[in-house]
Formats: sequence, structure tokens, C-alpha cells
Amino acid sequence: MERNTVTLFETIVTLLENKRYATLRDILSTMNPVDIAGVFEDIQDEKTAVLFRLLPKELAAEAFVEMDEDTQELLIHGFSDTELKEVIDELYVDDAVDIIEEMPANVVKRILRQADPDVRKQINEILKYPEDSAGSIMTTEFVKLRPKMTAEEAIKRIRRTGIDKETIYTCYVSDESSKLIGIVTIKSLLLAEDEDIIEDIMETNVISVNTLDDQENVVQVFNKYNFLAVPVVDKENRLVGIVTVDDAIDVMEEEATEDIQKVAAITPTTDKPYDKLSVGEIFKSRIPWLLILMVSATFTTMIINGFEESLAASIVLTGFIPMLMGTGGNSGSQSSVTIIRSLSLGEIEFKDIFRVIFKESRVSMLCGVVLGAANFVKMLLVDRLLLGYDEVTIMVSLVVSLTLLLTVICAKIVGCTLPMLIKKIGFDPAVVASPFITTILDALSLFIYFMIAQLVLGI
Amino acid sequence: MERNTVTLFETIVTLLENKRYATLRDILSTMNPVDIAGVFEDIQDEKTAVLFRLLPKELAAEAFVEMDEDTQELLIHGFSDTELKEVIDELYVDDAVDIIEEMPANVVKRILRQADPDVRKQINEILKYPEDSAGSIMTTEFVKLRPKMTAEEAIKRIRRTGIDKETIYTCYVSDESSKLIGIVTIKSLLLAEDEDIIEDIMETNVISVNTLDDQENVVQVFNKYNFLAVPVVDKENRLVGIVTVDDAIDVMEEEATEDIQKVAAITPTTDKPYDKLSVGEIFKSRIPWLLILMVSATFTTMIINGFEESLAASIVLTGFIPMLMGTGGNSGSQSSVTIIRSLSLGEIEFKDIFRVIFKESRVSMLCGVVLGAANFVKMLLVDRLLLGYDEVTIMVSLVVSLTLLLTVICAKIVGCTLPMLIKKIGFDPAVVASPFITTILDALSLFIYFMIAQLVLGI
Repeated sequence: MERNTVTLFETIVTLLENKRYATLRDILSTMNPVDIAGVFEDIQDEKTAVLFRLLPKELAAEAFVEMDEDTQELLIHGFSDTELKEVIDELYVDDAVDIIEEMPANVVKRILRQADPDVRKQINEILKYPEDSAGSIMTTEFVKLRPKMTAEEAIKRIRRTGIDKETIYTCYVSDESSKLIGIVTIKSLLLAEDEDIIEDIMETNVISVNTLDDQENVVQVFNKYNFLAVPVVDKENRLVGIVTVDDAIDVMEEEATEDIQKVAAITPTTDKPYDKLSVGEIFKSRIPWLLILMVSATFTTMIINGFEESLAASIVLTGFIPMLMGTGGNSGSQSSVTIIRSLSLGEIEFKDIFRVIFKESRVSMLCGVVLGAANFVKMLLVDRLLLGYDEVTIMVSLVVSLTLLLTVICAKIVGCTLPMLIKKIGFDPAVVASPFITTILDALSLFIYFMIAQLVLGI
Repeated sequence: MERNTVTLFETIVTLLENKRYATLRDILSTMNPVDIAGVFEDIQDEKTAVLFRLLPKELAAEAFVEMDEDTQELLIHGFSDTELKEVIDELYVDDAVDIIEEMPANVVKRILRQADPDVRKQINEILKYPEDSAGSIMTTEFVKLRPKMTAEEAIKRIRRTGIDKETIYTCYVSDESSKLIGIVTIKSLLLAEDEDIIEDIMETNVISVNTLDDQENVVQVFNKYNFLAVPVVDKENRLVGIVTVDDAIDVMEEEATEDIQKVAAITPTTDKPYDKLSVGEIFKSRIPWLLILMVSATFTTMIINGFEESLAASIVLTGFIPMLMGTGGNSGSQSSVTIIRSLSLGEIEFKDIFRVIFKESRVSMLCGVVLGAANFVKMLLVDRLLLGYDEVTIMVSLVVSLTLLLTVICAKIVGCTLPMLIKKIGFDPAVVASPFITTILDALSLFIYFMIAQLVLGI
């Protein structure tokens, strides 16, 4: 697939240079809108305006939606007002909103000026909803049916009006006051008898989301129920839009990427793919946590300085600081990342906190004992015998192994508790938890280490 | 939503105890299969068999599919052969396969014995495909059309046979040798004229996946093209099945969770949610990397011991080891995680490696300079003036800050290069890269630290 796109791309560029427009039109007409968008993104040039004019109107709009914002802006820049209007008229409202959200103010003004008054109204409606809310990702173009219609009438209605709807596969039934009372899939319509009445065949146990729900909740509904679309209602249960599964998938990938980034102490600032990000944007998303974590390491410096005399007395202890802190950090992040992901998938909630702590305690005991024992054997066999560090005595090995055991237990309990508490008080566990946990665990493991060393070695 | 389920659950349990079966049937019939499955999972008891018999046949099968494997096994255990056959007959083939894959051998035998010969054959076909391949997640129940049919004939065919198909929204057109030649959506069928011929209205530029493709590739196709279903073809381009978007979403979440787990050094062993995992399962998924990372920390011990004399001469240096290693680790994981995610979303490929290294070098220079400068100021102001550590001289601060600069640059370059190389030689970058990077960076940052210290401080 990928290989085809590349060869095709070169052909298209050559044809464009040679002004073979008829051939180009034929080629483009057989292509998928996503692949056409790819070609435009790769050309990234004033010439794309010519190419765009070759596309059939509907395909042009479909491809336009799939392009990145730079290519879109370049094209809009080259459009006459009439051309711009033609594209906008073909767009689904939610796609138009997505584009508008990424464009500079002067382009937005131009787009809104060219949109039909009715479409402009719908766009403005959606733009009013908070970012990342269900309202902001919904579309207002869906098939509405009345409860008293027959299946035949419904199908006729769909055939008449369906062309402008984002999906016709799930139709929504509302009463006179626009309240959502049921849904009918086109499958059940087609499988029904012509004279069946909608309210008899519709599904009345409708699962919907609220306009102000977070998009993460919308994704959870798709995950749980395998829907192709979910209706969005306002506070009075009036049907105002739908979210289709393709938009939900985009949100899903975005949220998963964000979760991964946050775990790695990156501030998610944008949903652009890596190769579209500038060096400055990447820098800005990474430097804040690096600075915070660096400064918060002052605690570890303080602890080490506090125990300076013990360290001087038994300098061999220094050699195991990285291992202890590393293992503590890894143990903690295993727990915190598991809990953060489970929270974000809706698998666990705050009320499960004691069950989670109990489970993690048992896991941490197992891990701690195995790691402690393995380390004891390893220090005596590898460090003492194989590498010949005479300072690694049985007592030193005991100190390090005991510290390891306690650190792993603390790490896992802190790692599972903190994300849940942070979520409970209303912050994003993925952002706040990781750096906090690192700082707490680093300090904790050093403190445990020196306390045990003083007790056991009497230094 | 969640709150309703809870109250409803208590009502259902009470009604079940009081044997109010007619009322129970009425309640269950209005519920979504996923929520019914939740009720069964929460009851987890022999009593569920009674409850299951109350469900209408189709709803029963739909709910059965959504249950976790323990509940399914419990139910199958209580089924008579006739009841089991009834459920299996209602299942889509791919759902049957999913269930079979999770059941113990004796239950699998019983299921296959009750399945229709034709269905059994289809199940066995799918079971033959490797785990995580497109073939293993596809269904063989889809609508096949012939190129010479009219739109009217096609719709009639769908109305006649559609009830057993997993989706009727995309129909597949194949020639006499079963080769896939086009697709038609039901939307275009409904919007076409009755007498239009399928081959004239079908989409011929079909994007398909191969039976042996990795499921990750299938997900990338869904991500890229916003399809509701993707056709699966064999080596001869013969159409053998389709993957529907709901199954793709499951894979998507599974893969994202796996990516997150691997980044946190957890071995992904199962797709069960956290609260279904036993302590032993969690332990087994976590202990391997903890052990490997612990043992590999021997290198850091060796380096520290190698520079023991320098450390003894300037013991203040010890206090900054945790900060240096932590910042190096964080910088590296920011890069590696970004690259791992981009690779898995298909945003970048191996051929981009030099562009990636160039970009990361510039980012790392910026980060390194800012962190180095900030650290220099911080050490003199906080550590020396505020905390009164007299050993923190300008030269010591210089050593630490220079190390920080170099460590961050190394960390980011190693962090972006290694995942791409590892993927290139055929391993999973998410599994192998993180622990490798940690070990390499820990050793590297210590080495840089002591070399600079010896140079600058002359110890």
C-alpha cells in the first residue's frame, strides 16, 4: 500500500508539471480521499490549487477534510470565494468545525462568511461547547424520524435526505418536544415489514451522552457498547447531535497518546503527529517536567548530605544507590501506570481504592521478597566473588537487600494510591502522579537505605 | 448511568430470590446486552442459569458474548446440550471464536460438537490463523454481492440474508473466482436508482488487509481511513472475511494498553482488566523486568566503584548522582516514548531515522542548555546559599551542570535511535527499548560525571 502511494506520487507530480490535467483527473478520481490528502500534503505548494480544481466536488471536500492544517490553509489561501463556498457546502458540520478550530482568525472569518446561514448557525452552536466536550466533537447532521412513521416511510425519508447526513445507519426518533425517545438502525428498518410502525421496532433503552460530558466518557461508551454512533442530548434530554465512531476513534488514539506522554513526563500540548511538530513545540512540551523533576531532586541531595558521615564511613554503599533508586522507581511506575490506565479505561474507580491497595500490597510483597533474595545472592556471587569487591560483605548485602524489599513495597503502595487520590481531588492522575511519585520514592528509598545501614552496620 | 445499573442490580437480585420471573423477563428485555452481561458477572453464581433462560434468544446470545470468561464458563457448565446449541447458533462466528479461545479444552469440545457443521468449519478456519493476525479477528459472515446485480436486487438480497450478517452497512462484490473487486455501502445502494447496476456504483479502489497481516496494521487502516469494516483477503486476493470497526476498537485499546505497559517495564500477558487479574498474574507480568533491570544495574555499581577514590576525595559529588541519573532517565524516556508511539501509530518509519536524530539533537541542545543553566543557578542559590552546603563550590556546580548538559543530549539521542534500530532488526521497540535505554543511560551519565569531575576538579 505504502509503496503504491510513493510511485503514484511521482507520477502525479510529473503529470502535474506536464499539465496533463485529464489524465490527472482520471487518476485522482479512483483514489481514496485519505490518499489524495497525502499527495497534497507531500506537494505542499501553490500548485496544489490547480490539482484541487481537478477533483470532483464531493471527493474534493472529502480529501480536504483529511489534509493537515498547513495544506488546508495553503489551499484556502488560493481559493476564490466561490470555490471556498463550494467546499464548505460539501463539508459535514463537525468537519467544518474541526477545520475552523485550527485556522487563524482571518481564515475563520472568511469561511464563516461563505457558509450558508443555516450551516453557520450550526457551526457556531458547536463552537460554543467547551474543548474536549461531547458537544465539541458531535455533528448535527443525522437522520431524525418520528415515532408514528412506518418502516417504508422511514426508508423513503432516508433515501430523500440521507445524502447530507454523516451516517444513515442509526436513525434517531424524537417526540414533538425534540426529546430523544428511541433509535432505529437501518438494519432493523430493512429487515422490518413495510407497514411496521417505528415506535414498535425502535430500541427505547437508549444510551446517550450529555453535551458537556468529557470526550473521554464518550470514548468509554463506544468501548463498552460497540456502537456506530452515540446520541448527544442537552440537559433537558433534547437530541442535539450525534458522535460517530470514526470521530470516537480519533479521540481514542489521541487520549491513549496523551496517557503515554504524560507517563513519560511530557506535557501533551497538541495532537499533531511527531513529524509535524517543530523543535520549539517539542522543547516546550518536554522542558517543564524536566525542570520540575530536576529541582525536586534537591530532596535527594539533602538526604545524601544528611547522611554524609555514614557514607564516608562505608563508601561501598554509594555504589548501590542507583540500583535501589532505579528499582524503586520501576516498581512504582509499574503500579502507577497500571492504575492510571485502568482509571482512564473506567475499569476501576475511587471506591475500589482499598481493594487496589490490598492487591498491590500482596504483589509488592512477592516482588520485594524475590528481588531482595535475588539481590542478596547476586551481590555475594557477582559483586563479591566474581568482581572481587571485598567491601561487599554479608552485612552490606543484607542492608541493600532489606532496603530493596522495603522500597519495593513502599513504591507499589505509593504508586497505586497516589493516582487514585489525585484523581479524586480533581486533577489528572497521569500528569501529576508520575513526577510526584518519582520524587517521593527517590527520597524514600534513600532514607530507608541510610536508616537500615545505620542500624545494621552501626555507622 | 453507573448509578442506575447499581440500583437495578439490587432489584434484579431481589426479584430473582423471590422467583418473580415474569417481572425479571420484562426488565431484562429492555436492557442493553452489555449491561445484562454486567449483571451476570456481578451475580457469578449457579442462579444465573435461571436468569439466562428468561432472556429472549437473540438478546441472550448478545449478552453472552459480552460476559467475561468466568461467567461464560459457569453458564456453559449449567447449559443442557440443546441450550448450548441455541446460544451458539445465535453467535456470530468471530464471537464464537473469541469465546472458544478463552475456554478450557473440554468446554471447547462441547461447543464445537454442538455447532452446525458449516459453522464448525468456519470456526476451525479462523482458529487456524496465528494469534493477533487479521485472520484471527475477522468474521466470515458478511454480505456478498455480484457485479451484475441491480441495486434493487442487492437490497432484496440484504433484506433476505442480512439478519445473520455482522454488518450489512458495507457489502462486498466478488467475481466468479471469489476475487474481491469492489465494495458498496448500503448508503450508496439506498441512494441509487433501483435499476442501477452494482458494478457501476461500487467503489473499485478497495483497501484490504491480508489474512496474515498483524492486527496492528489492521488498526492502522481503520485509523487512517475511517472505515466501518475492512475486507480481509488471502494471498490470491480472494475475499475470506471482514474485520468490523467494533473489533478494531477492541484491538486499538488493547494495543494502546500494551504500549503503555511496556513503557513501564510490564510484560503484557493478558487483555483482562485490572480487577480481574489475580495477584499471581500481576506478579508474573512485573517481576521479569524488575529482575533484569536490577541485575543490569551492576554496571552502575562497577562505575561508581571504579571512581571510588574521586568520590572519596569530593564526597559532595555523591549528592547529585540521583538528580543526574533521574534527569538523564526522564530525558531519554521522553524521546523513546514519543518515538515508540509514533512508530506504533505509523507516523514515522525507519527511513526517517536521520530526520528524527537531527530533530532530537536540536531539542536536546535546547533542553540541555536550559537545564544546565538552571541547575548552575539553583546549586549556587539553593544548595550553597540557602541550604549552606559549603562544599558546593562554583567548580562543583560547573561539573554537575556540564554533566547535565551532556547527559541530556546523549539521553535524547539514544532515546530516539534505539527504538528505531530495535524495530528495524525485528523486535518490539516498546519491550526492548525502555530497559536497555535505562541501563545505557545510567551507566553513561555516571561515566560522564566522573570524567568531567576528574578533568575539572583534578581529583
